[in-house]
Amino acid sequence: MNAARIGVNYTPRRGWFHAWQHLDPGEIREDLTQIAGLGLDHVRIFPLWPLLQPNRTLIPPQSVQDVLTVADLAGEQGLDVSVDLLQGHLSSFDFLPAWVSTWHRRNIFTDPDVVAAQHTLARVLGTELAQRPHVTGMTLGNEIGQFARPDHPDREQLSPAQATAWTADLLRTVEGLWPDGRHHHSFDDAVWFTDEHPFTPASAVELGASTTVHSWVFTGAAQRLGAHDPGLALFGRYLIEVADLWHRLLDVPSARRIWLQEIGAPTPWVRPEDAAQFADASLRAALAHPRVEAATWWCSHDVARSLADFPEVEYTLGLFDEAGRVKPIGEAVARIAAELREGATDPENPATVGPRVSSSAASGSVPSGSGSAVSDRSASGGSESVRSASRSAPSGAEPGQIRVPRIALDGSDRSVLAPRGEVFRTWIDAALTTGPARLEPTPG
Amino acid sequence: MNAARIGVNYTPRRGWFHAWQHLDPGEIREDLTQIAGLGLDHVRIFPLWPLLQPNRTLIPPQSVQDVLTVADLAGEQGLDVSVDLLQGHLSSFDFLPAWVSTWHRRNIFTDPDVVAAQHTLARVLGTELAQRPHVTGMTLGNEIGQFARPDHPDREQLSPAQATAWTADLLRTVEGLWPDGRHHHSFDDAVWFTDEHPFTPASAVELGASTTVHSWVFTGAAQRLGAHDPGLALFGRYLIEVADLWHRLLDVPSARRIWLQEIGAPTPWVRPEDAAQFADASLRAALAHPRVEAATWWCSHDVARSLADFPEVEYTLGLFDEAGRVKPIGEAVARIAAELREGATDPENPATVGPRVSSSAASGSVPSGSGSAVSDRSASGGSESVRSASRSAPSGAEPGQIRVPRIALDGSDRSVLAPRGEVFRTWIDAALTTGPARLEPTPG
Repeated sequence: MNAARIGVNYTPRRGWFHAWQHLDPGEIREDLTQIAGLGLDHVRIFPLWPLLQPNRTLIPPQSVQDVLTVADLAGEQGLDVSVDLLQGHLSSFDFLPAWVSTWHRRNIFTDPDVVAAQHTLARVLGTELAQRPHVTGMTLGNEIGQFARPDHPDREQLSPAQATAWTADLLRTVEGLWPDGRHHHSFDDAVWFTDEHPFTPASAVELGASTTVHSWVFTGAAQRLGAHDPGLALFGRYLIEVADLWHRLLDVPSARRIWLQEIGAPTPWVRPEDAAQFADASLRAALAHPRVEAATWWCSHDVARSLADFPEVEYTLGLFDEAGRVKPIGEAVARIAAELREGATDPENPATVGPRVSSSAASGSVPSGSGSAVSDRSASGGSESVRSASRSAPSGAEPGQIRVPRIALDGSDRSVLAPRGEVFRTWIDAALTTGPARLEPTPG
Repeated sequence: MNAARIGVNYTPRRGWFHAWQHLDPGEIREDLTQIAGLGLDHVRIFPLWPLLQPNRTLIPPQSVQDVLTVADLAGEQGLDVSVDLLQGHLSSFDFLPAWVSTWHRRNIFTDPDVVAAQHTLARVLGTELAQRPHVTGMTLGNEIGQFARPDHPDREQLSPAQATAWTADLLRTVEGLWPDGRHHHSFDDAVWFTDEHPFTPASAVELGASTTVHSWVFTGAAQRLGAHDPGLALFGRYLIEVADLWHRLLDVPSARRIWLQEIGAPTPWVRPEDAAQFADASLRAALAHPRVEAATWWCSHDVARSLADFPEVEYTLGLFDEAGRVKPIGEAVARIAAELREGATDPENPATVGPRVSSSAASGSVPSGSGSAVSDRSASGGSESVRSASRSAPSGAEPGQIRVPRIALDGSDRSVLAPRGEVFRTWIDAALTTGPARLEPTPG
């Protein structure tokens, strides 16, 4: 495998994403310098749709310039940049322009005028970004599929065919003007686990330059396993296994990679004092998977407590605190970044941090009870957390793989893989005893 | 009466209200210079709530500064300024911050946290504005009551008592920190005509420094009378009579004045070639009413055709076109402004343009079929449009007054005065034959 990349989702320290409204390049540079200082190699950046396109046919040049400014400031720090197009959804807040709201409510995935405007925005922004070697590509929008999730309070109604068409069409526009970029779409884990979600696993694994995965233990895993459970640090890896299962179910090209595009350590599901170890274990487990090309932590900077109404979990996800001081979790991620760099410089030893788990875990920094000892199946050693006796070992599974029930390829029963199901529990139990297993389709 | 004032609702020529996003003082100055050049004496300005308060506890200093900049640029042109706080609603678009939308949906009139934030915004903005002698006061939000209208697609549920409390409380906050300002609240005509509207006529005539009226013929009058009907130019005056009726019904102090805060000439209900005459007739009819203290035209500048999704009527309401050229309607309003100034300089002849109607109408500029000849009941002369014979004169009404059925003081049957009712038709017919009549309550 190629060297995996490690980066962070950039949340401006001062003003969060409202920083876009009156962009201060000096403040942005300071943040990005801190990020680069951790040895990370890339950032995702997230402009706000209502600022980029306040009217359906108005894209203020200054708003475009602001995105370019942030991208270029990141480039100056040696960071690669991926730009998310339509926000859309960020940390519980939905940012929608007035021209798709209330009296102007229109389906953002199927209304022809809205979709045409999105393509225009993609072209305007993409044309500028494509000229910048430090910008690697575009994601259509951060978890934009949330607007079609069955539990969304203002859910957009659309069919799976329409969701797939929206994604494919917009990717085609971006790819057409920026053929050497790597372009993606993204979603929360509902795409893998919610039967009636119009965005399907097929669209996830067949469209875009690679398959993206967003790992949040509060969406079900923590409720199932319990807060502070060592298994939570394996949820990201589980999602990667789910994505990889769908790769095989749908026979996608074997070269297709997986981008763990978001993963974070949310309090109180993860104790603040365990966050660094959670990050270490989560990232090692994820990056050890041969299909994983990159992991991008959520997020760079804590949300300032002076900002209201965020879910409590969202305030403390940063690698830096709201004063800009690096947190232990930032140091943990920096250590992994350093290991990846070392591996990457050695052509005989392409970087995978998997084998490094044991030495790191042996360093004594492992809080008791935390799931630090995630040994990859390819790793020759490593300490293991032994689960309590009340948890049974997976039954009927061959070592290193877990067979899953037959799954409809249209995703209509995909929830069998959700955290509330038995596959997840079996997988977690096995992972904590013998290491992360591959999910094997039932033949036929 | 004191000299009535005449002004305009300021719609930035370039970018409409999206101009706030990246404010260009040079462009704003150019617009305001044009407005002052018409001889108008005041403007209303409309910041956007999501830009002023992107998070419940974040009021970007630059956003506040932008409001002050526009206010001061207007002051430099000799214009008085009234600032609308919460937009809220503008020309069919609703601008709501993310923290009251979708996952964060909360009632903007009754949720304690939302209301507290609105008071904070009022204090922050009001404290700065109060120091400026050219700023006359604040309106709580442009037609903010629309969010509680029964036909709003995301209607806020609240009782009349809650609506009144919200209005009174927020006015009290503004009045407390800015006692010498004149502060208002505003609504579309649903407050006068929609029985189940929680914002009531009582709140309209009892709260704020004066009673505000917004006159739009497309809300019912034009549907009743027909496009191009001469009676449409009297709709603003009718609303003033309705407000004045409620003054008497609710026994408000006799000194209470009425501000015709919005009135416009919407195509196609008013033909473009008739717009100047419509403005002339509308304003003369309104300003002739002894309770009217000011009229504020909607709007200063046409909406650029490059901006999408406005209702067709909204594009051509300006006194200036989208290239910044004064339109005939701008010249018509300027003539009235000049007459008011002349009257105002003569202490023996306090300005009311009512008596000037006849001479103006006699100048030959009256398009045939348009309702130019609005003679006020206090005017000694003036030409009259004779209605077609198919319209009967008001029956059973004494000259100069029209008796209305008993009306519940809580507004629960206020729709008896709506354009679809008989009172309106009777009043219009009388106004076009013998002049605008006073609406008289049924005693008892």
